[in-house]
Amino acid sequence: MNSSAIDIPGYTYGTPEVALSPATLADLERLKVSTGFTKEDEYYLHMAGVVLDAQVETIVNHWRANIIAGIPHLAKHSRNLDGTPAPDYLARSNQRFQQWIRDTCLRPYDQDWLNYQHEIALRHTSLKKNQTDGVTSTPYVPYGDIIAFVAVLNETMHSYLAANGHDAAAVSGMHKAWCKSMHIQIALWAGAYMDTEAAGKES
Amino acid sequence: MNSSAIDIPGYTYGTPEVALSPATLADLERLKVSTGFTKEDEYYLHMAGVVLDAQVETIVNHWRANIIAGIPHLAKHSRNLDGTPAPDYLARSNQRFQQWIRDTCLRPYDQDWLNYQHEIALRHTSLKKNQTDGVTSTPYVPYGDIIAFVAVLNETMHSYLAANGHDAAAVSGMHKAWCKSMHIQIALWAGAYMDTEAAGKES
Repeated sequence: MNSSAIDIPGYTYGTPEVALSPATLADLERLKVSTGFTKEDEYYLHMAGVVLDAQVETIVNHWRANIIAGIPHLAKHSRNLDGTPAPDYLARSNQRFQQWIRDTCLRPYDQDWLNYQHEIALRHTSLKKNQTDGVTSTPYVPYGDIIAFVAVLNETMHSYLAANGHDAAAVSGMHKAWCKSMHIQIALWAGAYMDTEAAGKES
Repeated sequence: MNSSAIDIPGYTYGTPEVALSPATLADLERLKVSTGFTKEDEYYLHMAGVVLDAQVETIVNHWRANIIAGIPHLAKHSRNLDGTPAPDYLARSNQRFQQWIRDTCLRPYDQDWLNYQHEIALRHTSLKKNQTDGVTSTPYVPYGDIIAFVAVLNETMHSYLAANGHDAAAVSGMHKAWCKSMHIQIALWAGAYMDTEAAGKES
């Protein structure tokens, strides 16, 4: 996957526009150990990426249109401040949401990946929300709401992982790997919301 | 379950010693909606509590002795500062860890539960760690390490939930409910580590 070949509005993975993450590769390694994320999980995540690749639009539409749209305190974060729809904003962020599924499964977890995790988190905080798309929406997404909604991502993901007819053990392996990655990511995102030392950076 | 009947060192659930949580019942309701936690999950969590009740000592010993003890950056938080074991501290906190499994499954998620969630989080931060047991250990547990290790709790929990011979659908229902509760709890714990507004409290 060549990030420069991916034409998604506001998607800056691997470019010089993305700042260095305050978390180091050593911090990432520590998080992998804490979650029990191993080479086997890398293997299953890649398998998941292959299964999910053609489904990312369906998946994100399900999350956005069938779930988030029905929860006002979540839906408002991709709407105008008066609560009216912001279809361009939604369309752009949906494309990045889709690509994030691919990146979760198919990107190496290296410095670029770490940097973009921080960028993703910042774009949900008052420091960077709305800037990428030049919109006027809520000033930030509360961290707790992100964490809470990851429970929905994890639960709904299971059936999408089964879509290519893998046996139950493989689907379970993919799902466990996905869930561990989510825990690594929400730990990293915490760094953008709080003092990085308390969030988990070794001093 | 009568909290006054539970004789665990430093366990203060439901007592006046526990301060009011900065998160309100309305915040909790919002988190439940964000995670998709419903009455069905309450039903399955109670079922899980019945299944886990007799296993909590085995489960916590597995987490502590078989997993955490082998991960120095996690093990140090229940040791002395020089890295030597602190068996009394470990024994006391293990009892509370066991009770936390029961409380997760069997307690009503009311104001007392919310208050104790905040107390649990504070006991992992520099504000209250070590005080309950009068020990000199690490000054705090980084938030990211807690979040990361919840992935292990979730993954290992599955087989314990199957121990009473429930069918796969019931075990899956219990596991999904457990995972949603974990997302609610780690969202609440974030409030002790960061500005409560950014963490998710509605202003």
